[in-house]
Amino acid sequence: MITGKNYIGNTLSAKGTKTYQTFNPKANTSNTTSFVEATSEEIDLAVALASQAFDTYQNTPGTKRAAFLHTIADEIEALGDTLVQTYMSETGLPEGRAKGERGRTLGQLRMFGDLVQTEDWRNPTISGEHKELRQYLIPLGPVVVFGASNFPLAYSTAGGDTASALAAGCPVIVKSHPMHAGTGELVASAIQQAAEKTGMPHGVFSNLNSAGIEVGVQLVKNPGVKAVGFTGSIKGGRALYNLASQREEPIPVFAEMGSVNPVIITQNALNARASEIAQTYADSITLGVGQFCTNPGLILGVKSAELTDFVNDLGEKTAAIDANCMLHPNIHEAYKKNGEVIINQPEIELVAIYEGTTEENQAQAKIATVSGDAFLKNLKLHQEVFGPFSLVVQCEDTPQLLEIISQLEGQLTGTIIAQEEDYKNLSPLVERLQNRVGRIVFNGVPTGVAVADAMTHGGPYPASTDSRFTAVGNQAIKRWVRPFSFQDFPEELLPEFLKK
Amino acid sequence: MITGKNYIGNTLSAKGTKTYQTFNPKANTSNTTSFVEATSEEIDLAVALASQAFDTYQNTPGTKRAAFLHTIADEIEALGDTLVQTYMSETGLPEGRAKGERGRTLGQLRMFGDLVQTEDWRNPTISGEHKELRQYLIPLGPVVVFGASNFPLAYSTAGGDTASALAAGCPVIVKSHPMHAGTGELVASAIQQAAEKTGMPHGVFSNLNSAGIEVGVQLVKNPGVKAVGFTGSIKGGRALYNLASQREEPIPVFAEMGSVNPVIITQNALNARASEIAQTYADSITLGVGQFCTNPGLILGVKSAELTDFVNDLGEKTAAIDANCMLHPNIHEAYKKNGEVIINQPEIELVAIYEGTTEENQAQAKIATVSGDAFLKNLKLHQEVFGPFSLVVQCEDTPQLLEIISQLEGQLTGTIIAQEEDYKNLSPLVERLQNRVGRIVFNGVPTGVAVADAMTHGGPYPASTDSRFTAVGNQAIKRWVRPFSFQDFPEELLPEFLKK
Repeated sequence: MITGKNYIGNTLSAKGTKTYQTFNPKANTSNTTSFVEATSEEIDLAVALASQAFDTYQNTPGTKRAAFLHTIADEIEALGDTLVQTYMSETGLPEGRAKGERGRTLGQLRMFGDLVQTEDWRNPTISGEHKELRQYLIPLGPVVVFGASNFPLAYSTAGGDTASALAAGCPVIVKSHPMHAGTGELVASAIQQAAEKTGMPHGVFSNLNSAGIEVGVQLVKNPGVKAVGFTGSIKGGRALYNLASQREEPIPVFAEMGSVNPVIITQNALNARASEIAQTYADSITLGVGQFCTNPGLILGVKSAELTDFVNDLGEKTAAIDANCMLHPNIHEAYKKNGEVIINQPEIELVAIYEGTTEENQAQAKIATVSGDAFLKNLKLHQEVFGPFSLVVQCEDTPQLLEIISQLEGQLTGTIIAQEEDYKNLSPLVERLQNRVGRIVFNGVPTGVAVADAMTHGGPYPASTDSRFTAVGNQAIKRWVRPFSFQDFPEELLPEFLKK
Repeated sequence: MITGKNYIGNTLSAKGTKTYQTFNPKANTSNTTSFVEATSEEIDLAVALASQAFDTYQNTPGTKRAAFLHTIADEIEALGDTLVQTYMSETGLPEGRAKGERGRTLGQLRMFGDLVQTEDWRNPTISGEHKELRQYLIPLGPVVVFGASNFPLAYSTAGGDTASALAAGCPVIVKSHPMHAGTGELVASAIQQAAEKTGMPHGVFSNLNSAGIEVGVQLVKNPGVKAVGFTGSIKGGRALYNLASQREEPIPVFAEMGSVNPVIITQNALNARASEIAQTYADSITLGVGQFCTNPGLILGVKSAELTDFVNDLGEKTAAIDANCMLHPNIHEAYKKNGEVIINQPEIELVAIYEGTTEENQAQAKIATVSGDAFLKNLKLHQEVFGPFSLVVQCEDTPQLLEIISQLEGQLTGTIIAQEEDYKNLSPLVERLQNRVGRIVFNGVPTGVAVADAMTHGGPYPASTDSRFTAVGNQAIKRWVRPFSFQDFPEELLPEFLKK
């Protein structure tokens, strides 16, 4: 069922000569399918078809796009165990995770389908005092989506970016993630099936293979592309943002990138329930082998005997959790390298490291600690280590803790672990944290991102390139649309939902 | 009353040595006040004060910001005839226009004041199935506003950008437009008065003088600045956009720039009322000496005897309207130069030119015409000529007219002049035009931009750098805010409007 070819619209195509394979980190061996990189010609054709498709697709009734999205979900479901096995063979992640992520992906597709069943999402507006003006949201044009390594289903081929863009009326070209190209092709085939069954125009979706950066670069530079969605590293997202902003016609890039997701624990919380917090955080730090955008990589408290005990306890509990393999040897290598950069800073104390036997590609979880003084002075310690690693900062006092928060780069989330007796003193902390993050979690963990209309998944740079939008939840559709107004337009020619 | 100094927060400051004067185009002489350019030190201080002010200003209740905005309007009104006379002496525009624009400016300030009297504009959202999530909009931080040459009040010091940013909770630093620095200082003094009367933090507003680009460049590069608003030329807006996107932390730039505002006239409309249309457009082309962003610079029709007659009639009627002086000798020079570039293309026919006697700085209105073939081939003909100039394109047939529309750069507006018998055939035209513009006007003129919640003033690049927002109307506030979510936050600590 997996051919290794590109989908250029509804046509399988493999004109190139460069090939690559995906890797099974659990078996520590390459998978067998050879994926053929898209050529310049194939890329240009995909964009030309998307531009053509946009002419009709943008004007399809919402109910038809809803049917398309629901059918995509059904077709992905119909891939059944083939999809689950392929996913597992390309990620090393367990079956439960594969099925859970598939459920989330189907849920997102159906949610966006339901959203566009009516036209309310377009925010149709008739001015109070200027009834001659009728405004609504219209799609931008073809969107390029770069899938994420860590969510081969939920943030890749038919993930949140693709679902929200298709819902908005934008054709989508996916630059397939090379680590799960087989999973990507299966999902792409489901989208093509759905497009055919629901009568969508040829070119409404394409899926292009590439192991390097050339295909993505060419896509973002193509004048037919009108917006970009990306989930991944700061380096990758920034490179695409730079390309897009240097075009003759700059285009918006919504890149969801790095975050260390600071967690602040109060003394009262430590006094009341240090051991419980340590267990909750050991679990959160190692969840999915630490490969979540919202992994808690930084924990902050004011120094005390209880904080010292907590650090040691957190270390023990984290090190006691079974090791698992990371998504790819390259990701495992980066985890080791980036962790060592931090561990090798002079001020750092390594508290604990997983010491059981590990198989190939399995990550050793690590907890380290450092003083607030040292953290403030050494920006290397502010960098994300993607994987099961967390750094506990023992601040001199509350003012230093607040200063550290103000100095942090932009983050997806910030978490406050506190007791009721802290409430009256929390506002300086909340205000500072709010300026640095997109979401504040209270007495919980940042891992886990609900797909909901009040979710903000995004934040000040470098958490995302445009903090004015969210990547998760209904409102993610707003990234791909713009307001448009009719003035004095004949009532009979207006869309139904703009009539008086 | 005009000192020539900068307002660094509430303090008049003139540490620099570079000075410049404004110019009275009607008297053809410089005005007397010497304006002192802001120094690096003054710029940095203004940004530092704005960042400090943001800490408290972002958390002021909406009712207090509303009082601030209403008081700004009152203080500007209290400047009375001094403001009107200064405006006239720096623009050459007549008293009626000065007063009209003042009225619009006061109206905008009061509208944004009213908008933030309640917190509805923050779009407070409690998730249906995830009641633990509470989302609302929060301000980005200090905003830099670059005033427009052509609207010294409505799009400058206390214009739409400043009013919407202050309403959102963002401190504002204005880079004063050098052509109306005196008008700008008067308005800045009104804002400072209002800030003092309503107890706003020092640094919530600054006004910096500059005749060149250095002050603006330094402002946009300053890490304390979090967003930029601009109204002006494509060259200027793009330069700022490039600077902002090359920062270590890129920031959003909303630049409202060039537009030729295409007008399409059907054969049926020409048959029915060619002479009336010609008069309406002669008036629109010369309104404010053609110095509106929405000036109709391009008129399209399918060639016919009636279109030829219309072109000649439009030329005669335009040339019959009294000449008036432009805002500044530089703008007049650019008008002459850019007009000549077009007139000198081999395919162009100059239809009419104002031939009365002109005084210094007065523009000669011009109408030119060209075939659709020539227009398609020569991109120079697509460029805006800022001033009372319009080019009529006589297309070979309807398909060519549609092709030309698809080839146009992004525009603020597009206008359709048609009869009821055209309605059944309009959709190909409407669809193409919609992809190129932010607003379609029907049987009217594009000049005149209502301040209303259903207004879109913006459009695909280069009409604006981010078509996902509007620069005019209530919704302009969305440029300066981002979504933020509380998760599982104690009910008692939430803002009132996020409680269940």
